[in-house]
Formats: sequence, C-alpha cells, structure tokens
Amino acid sequence: MSNARITLVNPNSLIKVTEAIERAVAPFQRLPLEFRFLTSADGPAGIQTQAEADASIAPMAQLFLREAATTDAFVVACFSDPGLHGLRDLVSAPVLGIGECSVLTAMSMATRIGVIAIAGASIPRHLRYFRAMGVAERICGELALDMKVSDLADAELAFQRMVTVGKTLRDVHGADVLIMGCAGMADLRKRLEDECRLPVVEPTQAAVAMAAGRLFGRGG
Amino acid sequence: MSNARITLVNPNSLIKVTEAIERAVAPFQRLPLEFRFLTSADGPAGIQTQAEADASIAPMAQLFLREAATTDAFVVACFSDPGLHGLRDLVSAPVLGIGECSVLTAMSMATRIGVIAIAGASIPRHLRYFRAMGVAERICGELALDMKVSDLADAELAFQRMVTVGKTLRDVHGADVLIMGCAGMADLRKRLEDECRLPVVEPTQAAVAMAAGRLFGRGG
Amino acid sequence: MSNARITLVNPNSLIKVTEAIERAVAPFQRLPLEFRFLTSADGPAGIQTQAEADASIAPMAQLFLREAATTDAFVVACFSDPGLHGLRDLVSAPVLGIGECSVLTAMSMATRIGVIAIAGASIPRHLRYFRAMGVAERICGELALDMKVSDLADAELAFQRMVTVGKTLRDVHGADVLIMGCAGMADLRKRLEDECRLPVVEPTQAAVAMAAGRLFGRGG
Amino acid sequence: MSNARITLVNPNSLIKVTEAIERAVAPFQRLPLEFRFLTSADGPAGIQTQAEADASIAPMAQLFLREAATTDAFVVACFSDPGLHGLRDLVSAPVLGIGECSVLTAMSMATRIGVIAIAGASIPRHLRYFRAMGVAERICGELALDMKVSDLADAELAFQRMVTVGKTLRDVHGADVLIMGCAGMADLRKRLEDECRLPVVEPTQAAVAMAAGRLFGRGG
Amino acid sequence: MSNARITLVNPNSLIKVTEAIERAVAPFQRLPLEFRFLTSADGPAGIQTQAEADASIAPMAQLFLREAATTDAFVVACFSDPGLHGLRDLVSAPVLGIGECSVLTAMSMATRIGVIAIAGASIPRHLRYFRAMGVAERICGELALDMKVSDLADAELAFQRMVTVGKTLRDVHGADVLIMGCAGMADLRKRLEDECRLPVVEPTQAAVAMAAGRLFGRGG
Amino acid sequence: MSNARITLVNPNSLIKVTEAIERAVAPFQRLPLEFRFLTSADGPAGIQTQAEADASIAPMAQLFLREAATTDAFVVACFSDPGLHGLRDLVSAPVLGIGECSVLTAMSMATRIGVIAIAGASIPRHLRYFRAMGVAERICGELALDMKVSDLADAELAFQRMVTVGKTLRDVHGADVLIMGCAGMADLRKRLEDECRLPVVEPTQAAVAMAAGRLFGRGG
Repeated sequence: MSNARITLVNPNSLIKVTEAIERAVAPFQRLPLEFRFLTSADGPAGIQTQAEADASIAPMAQLFLREAATTDAFVVACFSDPGLHGLRDLVSAPVLGIGECSVLTAMSMATRIGVIAIAGASIPRHLRYFRAMGVAERICGELALDMKVSDLADAELAFQRMVTVGKTLRDVHGADVLIMGCAGMADLRKRLEDECRLPVVEPTQAAVAMAAGRLFGRGG
Repeated sequence: MSNARITLVNPNSLIKVTEAIERAVAPFQRLPLEFRFLTSADGPAGIQTQAEADASIAPMAQLFLREAATTDAFVVACFSDPGLHGLRDLVSAPVLGIGECSVLTAMSMATRIGVIAIAGASIPRHLRYFRAMGVAERICGELALDMKVSDLADAELAFQRMVTVGKTLRDVHGADVLIMGCAGMADLRKRLEDECRLPVVEPTQAAVAMAAGRLFGRGG
Repeated sequence: MSNARITLVNPNSLIKVTEAIERAVAPFQRLPLEFRFLTSADGPAGIQTQAEADASIAPMAQLFLREAATTDAFVVACFSDPGLHGLRDLVSAPVLGIGECSVLTAMSMATRIGVIAIAGASIPRHLRYFRAMGVAERICGELALDMKVSDLADAELAFQRMVTVGKTLRDVHGADVLIMGCAGMADLRKRLEDECRLPVVEPTQAAVAMAAGRLFGRGG
Repeated sequence: MSNARITLVNPNSLIKVTEAIERAVAPFQRLPLEFRFLTSADGPAGIQTQAEADASIAPMAQLFLREAATTDAFVVACFSDPGLHGLRDLVSAPVLGIGECSVLTAMSMATRIGVIAIAGASIPRHLRYFRAMGVAERICGELALDMKVSDLADAELAFQRMVTVGKTLRDVHGADVLIMGCAGMADLRKRLEDECRLPVVEPTQAAVAMAAGRLFGRGG
Repeated sequence: MSNARITLVNPNSLIKVTEAIERAVAPFQRLPLEFRFLTSADGPAGIQTQAEADASIAPMAQLFLREAATTDAFVVACFSDPGLHGLRDLVSAPVLGIGECSVLTAMSMATRIGVIAIAGASIPRHLRYFRAMGVAERICGELALDMKVSDLADAELAFQRMVTVGKTLRDVHGADVLIMGCAGMADLRKRLEDECRLPVVEPTQAAVAMAAGRLFGRGG
Repeated sequence: MSNARITLVNPNSLIKVTEAIERAVAPFQRLPLEFRFLTSADGPAGIQTQAEADASIAPMAQLFLREAATTDAFVVACFSDPGLHGLRDLVSAPVLGIGECSVLTAMSMATRIGVIAIAGASIPRHLRYFRAMGVAERICGELALDMKVSDLADAELAFQRMVTVGKTLRDVHGADVLIMGCAGMADLRKRLEDECRLPVVEPTQAAVAMAAGRLFGRGG
C-alpha cells in the first residue's frame, strides 16, 4: 500500500512563500505520508484584503479539481482560508484550512488565544471568520505587525516586531497561547516561543497535523 | 443635477432572475433615482452550494470595476451576498448585500426572525454568515423549501410550499417576521404575508431601501 | 395620491433639539414624503439616566395615539429608543428608533462599530440595549464625551471632544465606523468624518432612511 | 433597632394580584423583617404587552418616591420588571425585580431553565430581557399557557395547563428547573413541583429572598 | 421547630481562612438559622491552580456525605466552587457555591461586573467558569492582586493593592460593581466600597444570603 | 532516537473500556509512536454523573505523576475530560482530552455538530463544558441513548439505538457531522457513518490524532 498524499496549496503566486510552507512541514516528513506543495500561479501576489482573498479562490478551485484524483487530503495554506467551505463542495477528500486548524489547535492548548496578524487590514476579516467559526470568545486579542508581506524577507526585523506584539498580547490581553496569523513563518516559531515564554501555534503545522490525523484515523 | 444611480448585480447568469429582481424594485421607481439591472453572464447558472457562491465572485468583480465610474451604490442581488466585503475593497461607492440588508431590516421589525431558504444545502452557509454578522441569536429558525431554483418557475407550487414553511417558522419556532431567503420572489411577498399573517421581508427591496437611504442621507 | 407622512418625535421637551433633528432630515426633503417634527412637551428636559428615558414614554404614547391617524411611519428621535417596542403595540404604522436604526445601518457599512455617547451614565443602558438587540459583539467600544446636553450648544467644544473620542475608538478599540450616540448633532457629521477619516452614522438620518425604505418598499 | 422594611409594589391595579403576592411572602414572615404590599392604583389592569409594561412605570415611580424614606429595599412584583433600572436611579435603597431574581435563583439550582409564561405575547419581551441580562443561553425554552390573567382565578384550570407546559419544557426542551413567569401563583408552586418532578422557582419568593440577603448581608 | 442548619465548608485546610469565613457570616447570625463552619482538613493548603481546586473535591465529598444528615443547605466556600455540580449529585440538600452566588448577586446590582482575583493563575479558570455559567458577557474585567494567599495576613497591604485594582476595573473597564474573588476577605469589604465608591459583593455573604432564601422560601 | 510515547488513561476502572480504547487506536499503530493504555484502577466503575467524573480526578492525578517521566503526551480517555485543565498543571507534557479533541475535530469537518450521549444525565454537564470551551453555538443538538454503560456490551442493541439518535440529530436538528459522546465505541463508527450517511467523529481517535500532531509538529 502506498502512502497517503497530502497536497498543500499556497493560494498566492509567491514561490518563496510556498518554499517557506514546505520548510514548515519538514518535521512531518518522517511520517508515512507523501506531501506535495503547489503554488497557485494565477492567484494574487499576496493576500491582505478580502478582495485578494476572494480573488484567490477561482484559480485554487482549478488546482483542486486537477489534483483531486491523486490527493488524499488538501490543505489551503493561507491563514484566511479562502474558499475553504466551497472547496469542500468540489472534492471528496478532506480539505483543511490553516487558519481554522490553528485556532482549533490553540483551543486544545490554553484558554485565551492571541493572534499575531501581518496587516491591520486583515483583522476585521479574521474577526468575521472567528465569529463564523463560533470561536470568537476564545480570541483575547489580535494585533498586527503592520509590515508588508514582502518585508518579511527581513526575517530579523519581522521577528523583533513579532516579539513585541506577542508580549503585548500576553501582558495586556492575557494571551496564554499565540497563533502566527500567516503562512510561511515557521522558521521563527521556536525563537518566538522562547522570547515570549508562551506556546506558539504555526498554522501550516497545525493543519498538517490535523490532516494526518484524519488520514490515519481512517486507517489511511 | 442628475439622479443618483444604483446598480443591482445578479451574480448568477439567469436573466429570468434578473427580471424578477427588476420587478422587486418597481415600487422604488418613483424615487429620484436611476436603477440599472445587470446579469453576471459569466457567473454560475444558480447559487446553492458555497462553491457556486464563491465561483460567482470573480466575474462579479469584473462587472463592479467596469461599472464603478457610473455607479453611486451597488447591490449584490443574491441572498448569500457572495464577495460582499471584498467588493467593498474594490470600489469606493457603497456596496449593499441583499442578505445582510434583509436581516438588518427584519431586526427593525420584530424580535424573532424566521428565514425561508430555497435549498437545505444553503442553510449551513447562511448560518455561518449570520454568525459572522453577529446576529445569529436573532434568527429563531431557518427552513428550506427543498425545491430547485429552476422549479421556482412554477410560482404557485413554490408559493404553497413557502406558506407551509412560513407557518412552521411562526408556530413551532416562534417567528414574528419572515425573510424570503432568495432573490427574485418579490411577486409572492404580499400573498405570503396575507397567508402567514406575519410581515415578510423581501431582500432586494430591503437592500434598495438601505441603498437609497445611504444616497439621500449624504445629500445624494 | 398624497405623499406618505413620517412623524418624528423628540421625546424630550427641548425645542432646540427638535430643530436640530429637523436639520438632520434636510437631505431627505427632496423625496416625495412629508415630514413632521414634534416635541414631547410633557417629556423630561433631557434624557441621560434610565429614569429620564422611562419618564419620556408616557407622554410620548399620548402623542403617538393622537397622531396615528395621520402618520404613515413614526420615528422615536432619541438614541435610547425609549418605549420603542411598546409604541409598536399602540399604533399600526411602522415605528423606527434612531438608536436601533443607527446600529443596523452601521452594521451594513463595516465590521467594528464605535459609539460616541454624550454621558457616561448612558453607557450601561446602551449596553443592555445592544445586548437585547443581539448585536453587542459588533460594538467594539463606547466612550462618552462627558459633557452635559446643555453644553452641546457650544458646538465647537463638543466637536473637538468628539474628534478625540472618535480617534480613540478608531486607534485603541479598532472601530472602522462611528455612530453619534445622540440626536441633534447632524451638523457635525461631515466634519467628524473628515477629522477621523471614518464613516459616521447620524442616527436620525439612519432612521429616516429606513422609514422611507419601509414606505416605498410597500408601494407607499 | 427596628426591623428593616421591604416594600413590594404590584405595578398593576389588581388588588387580587397584590393579595396573592402577599401570600407568596408568607414563609418569610418569621424573619426579623417588615413587609409592606402596595398596589399601583394608577397602573394598568394587567401587564401582557410591552405597552402595558411601559405604562406601569410612571405611576410606580410616584409610589417609589413617596415610600423611599420608609423603605430599606423595594421589590417590583411583575415578571417583566418594568422600569427596574430606572427606579434604581430614583431611590437609594436596593430595588429588586422578581423576573431578574427568579432567573438568577434558577441559575443557582440547575443548568437548563424553562419558563412558563402566561401569554404568548410576553415571550418576545422576556426574550429581549433575558438577552439584556446576558443570560439567554441559560433559558432552554419558554412556553405560554395562553390564558388571560383574569382566568387565573380558576386556579385548577391554570394549574393543569401549567403542568402540561412544564412537562413539555422538561421532556422536549430539557429543562431541569422551571420558573413561573408571573407574579401571584405561589399557591400552586408546591403542587407544580410534585407533578413535574422538577424544582420550581416562584419569582416573588426569589426576590424577597435576595432582598433579605442584601439587607442582612449589610448588617441590616 | 429547630432552626435550619447551613454548613459552610472551606475546601482548603487553612483554619485561618475558615475563621475569616465565619466572620463574614456574622451579620446573618441574628437570623433564625444555625451555621456550622468546617475546614476540609485533607484539602490542599490553598487553591490557586486548577489542580489544587480539583484536589480539594475528593476530601470535600467525604465531608458532605458525613454531614448530609444534619445539614439543610451546604455552602462551598471557595470562589472557584470546586466540585459544585458533583456535590449536588451527592446530597439532597441545596448546595450553593460562593463564586456562583457572588456573580448572581452582582448581576442584580449593576450592569458591568469587575472581579478582583488573588492570583493571575486563577483568571483563566474563572473565565472558563463564567462561560460555563453563561454569564461571561456580564464580566467587564478581572484583574489579579498577584499576592500569595499567605500574604493576605498583611491585610493592609492586600487592601491597598485591592483598592488600586478596584479603581482600574472601575475607570478602565467600566465596572459599576465589584466582586472580591476569594473567600475570607469580608473584613475589608466596607472599606473597599468606601475607597472605590462602588458596591462590593463578598462571596460568602452572597452565598449565605441565597442559601437562607432557599430555606425560608421553602417555609424552612 | 526512540519513538515518542503517548499514554492514554481510562479514568474509570473497567478494563473492558480500556480494551475498546486500545482498539480505537489500532489505525495509528503504523505511526512511529509508542502507545500505552492505562486503567485507573481506583477510579469509579463508570462515569455518568458529575460526581463520578469528579471522583475520577484524584486517582488519575496519581497515575499522571507516576507516568510523567516516561510520557511525551497524555490522553484523558473519557468524553467529559475530567480534570483536564488541572492535569495540565501537574505535568509538562501535553494533555489532550477526548471530549475537547472530538469537538475541535468535528469543527474542522462541518458546520453543525450533533452529539450522541450515552446517558441523559450527562447532557447538562456536557453543555456546561461546551460553553466553557466557547463552542456551544456549534453544537446543534445532543441526545442520549439512555442505556447503561454496562449494557453497551450488547453492541448491536446500542448500535441500533445510536442510529436512531443519529438520524434524529441529522433530520430534526440539522447535524452534518456526529460525535460519539463516549469512549470505547470505535468499533461502531464505520457502520454508524454508513447508516446515517454523515461523518462520525470517534473521540479517542480525534485525541490521538491531535496528540500525534503535537508531537510531530515539534520535531518529535
């Protein structure tokens, strides 16, 4: 029996982000699973506004249909989970969203969840999503780095800002677990935990873990 | 000074639905406003699943960008308000959704709101949306006709089923106001009110009223 | 056919407030509607406490009964909507409250709503009301000017304080739309929007817009 | 030191109801407290609609002001607690509402609370009130006897209907405690408990207990 | 007929705390009731973490079973109400928790409740409890003294810190009533009210008041 | 490097239940993990009431302390997750509860979750727990088999009753995913899915999947 295959789709067109997603999954590579990492070439160059999130859905739907026959579980690898429920209508395999999975995972770790967003413009969208999920009362605060996705290349700058935001969520908002509200920052997770002295959920890892659970739980 | 212009977009490709939307707006034609009714020719043939709702966004976004220069307010004329928040990112004119406006209007009329859906498959999507809006506790029940959009041509059959569902929402769920959870059924509103002896909100009319209010309130 | 008539009732006895309410409605005067502005001469001199709000109901009920025969829609023109649901029991015409309508209108504009109250004493009452309405999770903050209603005569002083409060709601509480939590301040709306760079809902205008929508939607 | 005095006010003008309220308090007469029972002679003849509840406030406010000097705690003896928050603005003594106290008391007894209303017309008002109190999720159901207040004279008929409604709340809605949603039915409490095999909260008794607690807790 | 007996159980093993609980009940001693104060000798030395709260349940259950035959109502005298619902399964007498009763009592006094916790580590546990109770939206804030239970011996130090926290809850979080989130601090209540100019609920007194109400309401 | 070890603890003393828990984990045995299955010999013989759930905590805490040195993740294998938060205070390894994990997993699968309980007496406890978790609005209904744990030996009888309850949750309450609200019934999951035509979450499998995710995500 061949290994089950998990297809992760980066809904934006930045290959650098896809590569960072792949690095996030590294710890799971020792599992008897096959991972595939796709970039949605026709997606937007980044997803900050709701319009960009929505624009990413149609090209992603094409990718899903194309890969459905050879995929056992899909992961939408953007924190806003664009199109998540609709993609579930399109394919029979489980479809996991990294935003949803990161919140659910954090809920199993501590009572009050703080979210570190990249851009302030994303916060109302996330808020609507947390409410739609029915978990808004678990989120004690969400604060933005207010840095451009492109600037995240300067990992050290992003990291220092992330630490500041994480400590504010901890000390002012009472967070006892943090979520990185963006794909592609897994490299910083361990250091962020050390600096903030709080557990940190990296969304792609949360989703891969839940996808693996779904597959093995089924005897996959 | 010329009249302000409201552009209503039917996100599915059925011209018959657009025509029904136009009839819904008839009572407002005596206002000093200009109305335009567009069919999203590249949209899906109907919107029941989340995938269909999502698929309607991209072509609608093109229409919005094309019409933005000559539009003072947009109305997304599908009860699921596909793309509503993202379309607000794209154009500077107000964008109203008939789903959102129908709920807000019903909230100004009575305490417990019952929703009549066309298809059961839409109910989880509506539920997520009511939660995202933060109004789920006002909805005392939503029940489906479980008829296809295409079958709505037989208005009499649809109407009788609608009356049955409306009375159940009233008697079992306690609704004191009803919302028609679909565009294009305005012709039946008055009769439904008479049969159910409850006020009934027709979504397109609710949205046009709120769009007009936005324009006149601004001195439009 | 004569135009439909909307009767706005100021539940306090200050004619100056009624005049400001009339100015708020000016942009709607080009609609085929007739507006009437009444002062509840036996009402309290101002409404800040719950006791004052309650004391305004009985005289207002008399006014409503007296005017019912010649009114197509009523507007209760105080942000606390005193007696709103009970007045709906008394007359058959629609009764709109400016508090309720301002919140519903703001909900169609943005995700997080900030409210500017005149007096801190009103905030617990408003909070109970937002909860009763089922919309409390949409209100990201309410802050008071802490100025007396009588001091609002010094419009410039009130305005500067309002700007400060509005900016705090925006920057600290995350508001992306503001509501003026009081009747009679429409003259300041445009300037407040410009200073705060956020849309601002004026409650009387929101209610007149929704009242007009109800009347035209009915073929009125 | 003389005993503390609790003034109970029946906001409707029916002396028969005041007498029943007095009987409800009988078990507390052995406490070192003085009880006084007032009928609001200018109040409405009964309180079913919101308009009737509102109409009862102004005459009750007069009573409160008149009795304030000789009262240590007030009880508003109508399940809808008309004017409760405003009356607290008028007098310095604690003001308890029998509706509020009955819900709070039931919350200390069991998880899911069922409410037996007299009239269906009261249910939306109660629902708004439970939401304003922030306790709506504790109420698993409210059902009405659909009998007139005047018909309650036929205690046996009322009782049988009450048993039926109580059992439905228990078996269909999951109630594990019941509230009698009206003043003046204390005589039936014990029998209702026996028939439904559930604890039953009588609102006047709940309020007197909490009023006594407030007074003794203060060294009263 | 002999007086009804209320048994208060301190779930931790500190006799000093039991003595403070006894002092809290002093104002109720003039009621025709008998009070008994028990220390759970096998309980933990203090209850700050959830593990300590849980560890207190088993020895308390033994005490309850031993005292059930001679007790008319029990009070669990720890703000976290350890084992409350389970203890209700064990004995037929009413079991009241001082945490639950303090919140319910505060809800009858004002709209926004602030809670003063001893230790920050308790706050997530309290938050889960307020949510389980369905009252979380009434709590506008909870802040900790961040002092050890043992340090409370220095009542003056604790008191000054309590005043600071109480004023922050009032001025920053909008509290209009405060709860002392711990047993054994009744001696400080009156002074805290005077300093903060807000009503203060002492949990043991709130529970004894509600227990007395339950007993007298039953003719006890 | 040796495999990470997950210790599952059955908090009741029935070895038959522990064996069923072990069978539930079978599909995960191909992962590079070591599983250990412990029975809490001093726990109650079954857990239906809150008192039984609470009584299971103290012996389980002993087990946890004893096994902490050789365990990388713990699973509390009872749907009520007795002591979950307190056990997290006792050991540094992750502690997962099968109740919490089953709800979180179901939330990643569909919008409306139905729960099949063994005993009606458990439902209020579960309800308090769902509220404490902040997810109550995702649970569209919970219904009980009303069979004793001991009777579950007759798997076929239990299964037929489970199918009936599952279909009621689907058709009357709108569930689109089901949770088996008890440990030890994994053998029936696949058949239940087939009969009800809905996905079914088995709690132990959900928890093992999330525990594995936590361990691998850490590079475990």
